[in-house]
Amino acid sequence: MRQILNILKEPKVRVIGLMSGTSADGIDAVLVEINKKNLKVKELLFRTFPYPEKLKQKILQVSSASNPNLDEVCHLNFVLGEYFSAAALKLLKGSKYKIGNVDLIGSHGQTIRHLPKPTKSFGKKIRATFQIAEPSIIAKRTKVATVADFRPADIAVGGEGAPLVPYPHFLLFGGDKKGTAILNIGGIANITVWSKNSSQIMAFDTGPGNMLLDFLMKKLFQKDLDRNGRIALSGEINLVLLKWFLKHPYFSKRPPKSSGRAEFGEKFARKFLSQAQKLKVNQTDIITTAGELTVQAVFLAYLKFIQPKFKVEKFLLTGGGEKNLYFKKRLKEMLKPTEVESVNIKGSNPDSLEAVSFAILGYLTILGRPGNLASATGGKPTLLGKICLP
Amino acid sequence: MRQILNILKEPKVRVIGLMSGTSADGIDAVLVEINKKNLKVKELLFRTFPYPEKLKQKILQVSSASNPNLDEVCHLNFVLGEYFSAAALKLLKGSKYKIGNVDLIGSHGQTIRHLPKPTKSFGKKIRATFQIAEPSIIAKRTKVATVADFRPADIAVGGEGAPLVPYPHFLLFGGDKKGTAILNIGGIANITVWSKNSSQIMAFDTGPGNMLLDFLMKKLFQKDLDRNGRIALSGEINLVLLKWFLKHPYFSKRPPKSSGRAEFGEKFARKFLSQAQKLKVNQTDIITTAGELTVQAVFLAYLKFIQPKFKVEKFLLTGGGEKNLYFKKRLKEMLKPTEVESVNIKGSNPDSLEAVSFAILGYLTILGRPGNLASATGGKPTLLGKICLP
Repeated sequence: MRQILNILKEPKVRVIGLMSGTSADGIDAVLVEINKKNLKVKELLFRTFPYPEKLKQKILQVSSASNPNLDEVCHLNFVLGEYFSAAALKLLKGSKYKIGNVDLIGSHGQTIRHLPKPTKSFGKKIRATFQIAEPSIIAKRTKVATVADFRPADIAVGGEGAPLVPYPHFLLFGGDKKGTAILNIGGIANITVWSKNSSQIMAFDTGPGNMLLDFLMKKLFQKDLDRNGRIALSGEINLVLLKWFLKHPYFSKRPPKSSGRAEFGEKFARKFLSQAQKLKVNQTDIITTAGELTVQAVFLAYLKFIQPKFKVEKFLLTGGGEKNLYFKKRLKEMLKPTEVESVNIKGSNPDSLEAVSFAILGYLTILGRPGNLASATGGKPTLLGKICLP
Repeated sequence: MRQILNILKEPKVRVIGLMSGTSADGIDAVLVEINKKNLKVKELLFRTFPYPEKLKQKILQVSSASNPNLDEVCHLNFVLGEYFSAAALKLLKGSKYKIGNVDLIGSHGQTIRHLPKPTKSFGKKIRATFQIAEPSIIAKRTKVATVADFRPADIAVGGEGAPLVPYPHFLLFGGDKKGTAILNIGGIANITVWSKNSSQIMAFDTGPGNMLLDFLMKKLFQKDLDRNGRIALSGEINLVLLKWFLKHPYFSKRPPKSSGRAEFGEKFARKFLSQAQKLKVNQTDIITTAGELTVQAVFLAYLKFIQPKFKVEKFLLTGGGEKNLYFKKRLKEMLKPTEVESVNIKGSNPDSLEAVSFAILGYLTILGRPGNLASATGGKPTLLGKICLP
């Protein structure tokens, strides 16, 4: 407990954020300095540690199989605890920062289930979520107090457990008095919007992101991803296919809402592929149309849920999808005349933003401040996470 | 965090302990007062809240199936979080104690996997364990800070994650300067021994307990358990069957060691039953022989691992098996002339002892004191658990 009390005394703290997204590419590890007074964040170090291919495949298998081997899931929790710890330690290697001077770790872990749909179970209406990468391992290996497993607390207060990045995004980019939308395209795409005077914030998952594209790239081109959106840019949109999938009920559902592998995972991607093949869409056009589905889902969400309430003066793009030039081009076209920029022009790194967000969320918990937003998750503001002591 | 700081200031704290054992009968909930200075414990309230039969069956199914439905496991985690919360709240109902005056909750949760055998997985040698009953739910529903999920931290420092009750047992019963053994017969049986001057402590799981007996009672007599050991007392030991199963390699393994459903769960019980039927042992004698296996496993452990190092002056019996008169009678005979008593003659309640132990473990973590013993789990002493704030 003494460690935690010391953190509270510091005017500036150093926090490591650890994150792995639904596409399970690897662990994003970031070291930031956070100013206690104004919560301004300075990024000091960032690295991504890709998972070994076999480990990635195991995570994806366990995430999508309805009945994975539970011993394997348990082992995987501890294995990922070791990998997350190693990522935190390796991040500092060769730098001037020592793990002994890190005050806190905030770890998102690896989502293997996200089940926000209320389900009747033994007389209780239940939402559930499951993030692994055992934080007790992280705290003991690094000897740094670790806050992790943030989503269950939001579910406990009536939320969907996601998205949790909106408040950190607002803390990072909300200073310039402009109505702003942050569009984060990871495996799933989510958007955070706030009004000019910051009096209102809203956030939700818009729908599929790289998860769908990556699956199709694997199947059709034996590649991990459509680097820079090159293939998507070279094809044409198949309108029949696009319209078919834009009918997905998720897109018309009112926020707060969150989604994951259950809605837009492998099953969805397989359906997309088989429908495309039935329509005899060529391989390149399948990729373009899948990319366009992400764009249109964002645009629909903007028209239906955002524009009636918010005057958005600029869009900031982040997440892995920020590198996809197809997304950038099409979003600019669709959202004209509103500016669409990358967060990196704001001095922030789109690759590290999620990890930075969980560093901030960990620190907020220690400060005794809620990290979730009712307008994003539907849950009332509450302290998130579980604290593991070294 | 303020709540936690307040706990540290109190000379006496009120802590709720929550526990459900491997046999998944229900939730033991206890309210204790712990004196900060000497860690003396006073039990204020105790109740067991049996699981609804269907929920119990689901827990047992998920615990023993190699590939349970993972969505169901995730939902079960949150469902049990609700049941554990309800147990904490109902415990106080009608008493003079209010939840607002409870300082802390220590929750063991419900074990659905315990895998202490080091297993090579993705380049790491891994042990694992998995307790459910989401503590974020408990903290938010009760508005009391909750420490839970104690076992992973011990695994992180090289331990087996079990047994964790030895140190609490020692704190509770270690005051009278006698070499003492506490034998706790739950689903699995475990023993804690300390020397006269308390300089040495040792603890480990001895082997099967009520889990084996309960399974056989269900199959042979369609009953949940052999109440008071009445059936075991009326039968005879089948020596061929007994000796066959005493060859199990677990019994000769040196401590520290822990076991669970993997060693002595349904698979073991089915083997026991089919071997008994092959030998044409009658139903009553099967129960007697299964009871005797627990007794002989304790006696073997005593001869091989305890007697060479410890002078045990008395045995204290606790756990569900404390009510089994067959166990009591046979242990007295085997361990003569050493006294064998129930913990209740020490003013303690054998039914509540596990829950009391996790109340103590939760408080130790807040005090910044390790709760595990190297001589019990093999892990070096460390702070256990995860802290969830209300």
